[in-house]
Amino acid sequence: MPVLDDPEEFEALAACPEPLLLGVRERKDPQDLAEGATYGYDRFGMLPDELAALAKRVAGTHHRIVLYHAMVGSQLDDSAFFIRELQESLAGFVSLRSLAPAMDYFDFGGGVPTSAYSLGFSFDYAGFVADLQRMVMAACDAAGLPHPHLVGEFGRYTVADHGVHIFRLGRVKQGQAGAPPWYLLDGSLMVALPDILIVSGQQFICLALNHHDAEAGPVVLGGRRTCDSDDFYPRPGDPPLILPLVGPQAPAEPLLIAFFGTGAYQAMLAGEGGAHHCLAPEAPKVVIEERGGELVTTVIPEQPPEDVLSELGYEVDW
Amino acid sequence: MPVLDDPEEFEALAACPEPLLLGVRERKDPQDLAEGATYGYDRFGMLPDELAALAKRVAGTHHRIVLYHAMVGSQLDDSAFFIRELQESLAGFVSLRSLAPAMDYFDFGGGVPTSAYSLGFSFDYAGFVADLQRMVMAACDAAGLPHPHLVGEFGRYTVADHGVHIFRLGRVKQGQAGAPPWYLLDGSLMVALPDILIVSGQQFICLALNHHDAEAGPVVLGGRRTCDSDDFYPRPGDPPLILPLVGPQAPAEPLLIAFFGTGAYQAMLAGEGGAHHCLAPEAPKVVIEERGGELVTTVIPEQPPEDVLSELGYEVDW
Repeated sequence: MPVLDDPEEFEALAACPEPLLLGVRERKDPQDLAEGATYGYDRFGMLPDELAALAKRVAGTHHRIVLYHAMVGSQLDDSAFFIRELQESLAGFVSLRSLAPAMDYFDFGGGVPTSAYSLGFSFDYAGFVADLQRMVMAACDAAGLPHPHLVGEFGRYTVADHGVHIFRLGRVKQGQAGAPPWYLLDGSLMVALPDILIVSGQQFICLALNHHDAEAGPVVLGGRRTCDSDDFYPRPGDPPLILPLVGPQAPAEPLLIAFFGTGAYQAMLAGEGGAHHCLAPEAPKVVIEERGGELVTTVIPEQPPEDVLSELGYEVDW
Repeated sequence: MPVLDDPEEFEALAACPEPLLLGVRERKDPQDLAEGATYGYDRFGMLPDELAALAKRVAGTHHRIVLYHAMVGSQLDDSAFFIRELQESLAGFVSLRSLAPAMDYFDFGGGVPTSAYSLGFSFDYAGFVADLQRMVMAACDAAGLPHPHLVGEFGRYTVADHGVHIFRLGRVKQGQAGAPPWYLLDGSLMVALPDILIVSGQQFICLALNHHDAEAGPVVLGGRRTCDSDDFYPRPGDPPLILPLVGPQAPAEPLLIAFFGTGAYQAMLAGEGGAHHCLAPEAPKVVIEERGGELVTTVIPEQPPEDVLSELGYEVDW
């Protein structure tokens, strides 16, 4: 089902001989922006006047608007705020319904937070869904409308905790006086986890997978497959990262450091399969899937240098 | 020539039967960090004690240290600061020279700024080089040392202005009351120019290539090949972007908007040739090279969907 972001988009579809089921996207109102919604959300969707005009235009064709797409935000861990925002969207749905009587889906959009970024995270998912249903029911009952089907878009919630990135500690370097030691990793943080640079304050759950008997203390991770002075974590101002302290030389059994919750966005923002910063190769991947009730494991080796060079236009023959 | 970042790296090379010419990298001192140098620079190189110990170790082998690599920073547009930092590095060179008498290259590293990010940029390149030469000469004369060869690493300076990214305006959307209109581009800003998100305050020279007769005013660009609320420019707090105002509908002759100075880092940070955010394809490329005195133009078409899907592990057969 195409969800229209702009009245103009309908004109590209209007001539389709088959009747189309369409969605329409709302545009955030100035109040939302005043409340600190990310400015970039303003570019999506249509204002109430545009929605009404489009609904009238569509009503004169053999196509139908069946879905209203709310635009509320991302990673909304304040359930009360999330519900208040959706109440405004629901008012838009109710108001448009008289002009689009076939509209029986309320798509509350994204925003459901993932628990994958913090061990202490809590969000009452069941409570949120119950509140959402009650609110939709009440608003539609008050307007004498049937209860719409609910649709949600659970991207980050669904995939963030399906990815783990494991780094091997290659070398320990003493920090300057008073500063934690550098843990130099055989990989690149900014290639594997671009959100550490892109999203201010982005945290990942980062844990050691071995050496749990060692004393623990603050460290700073550096990605030594690039020469970039920004290839480190945690970022300035972030809370310290506590990991086992393994001494100035990397131990014979290398420390393995896992970043959890990396399944949303990271590989695609890095340009999956492409040539990366400082020619850092992509790490080997272990893909674990359920097929017919069995867990099937596939290993994809480290990105070979031939691949990297061919992405850059070199013909490799060695 | 390998430039050693760590004493341990020499041990991997020491057994090489051929005599090696080696460089050594200095580590920024605590004072540099106190002066606001990017914290991430601290992870590179060796402290004076480590350099001295390594020089003694190398002197007992058939290998030679011939280059001292200073670590000063990036895009240093304050020439006086740049020279002061290099003076400290030069003191390190002079001090190490007694233990590494074959060391006759002073690599002042990166830091030479590019003029490609701002039309009003000024930096006295010739004056900087003259000051650098005078300073090196004076310091070496005072220490009774021969004048070393100078090496610089001119990455950003060399390539930033060799790339231009041209966007086509696809659609104009009115901004909220008091806000500039949205210019929605047939492309993605965050895929093409990742530094707009990665480097706080990063500016590019952005100019219209046509419609110069139209009235001009502030606009905000949105990249509509992704659905990301961060795919816009200029960023909050940046100066406004002034471009020709072409009305609510994109004109019949589309407005073309060029970003200059995109030749450094942008394609590699995005993952050149890979699958990108929201499956946004890479734009067509026009490569202009000089070959035998002639300008030769090569056109590389837009990244085809088959390429994007195959990077993600799909076998495409259509």
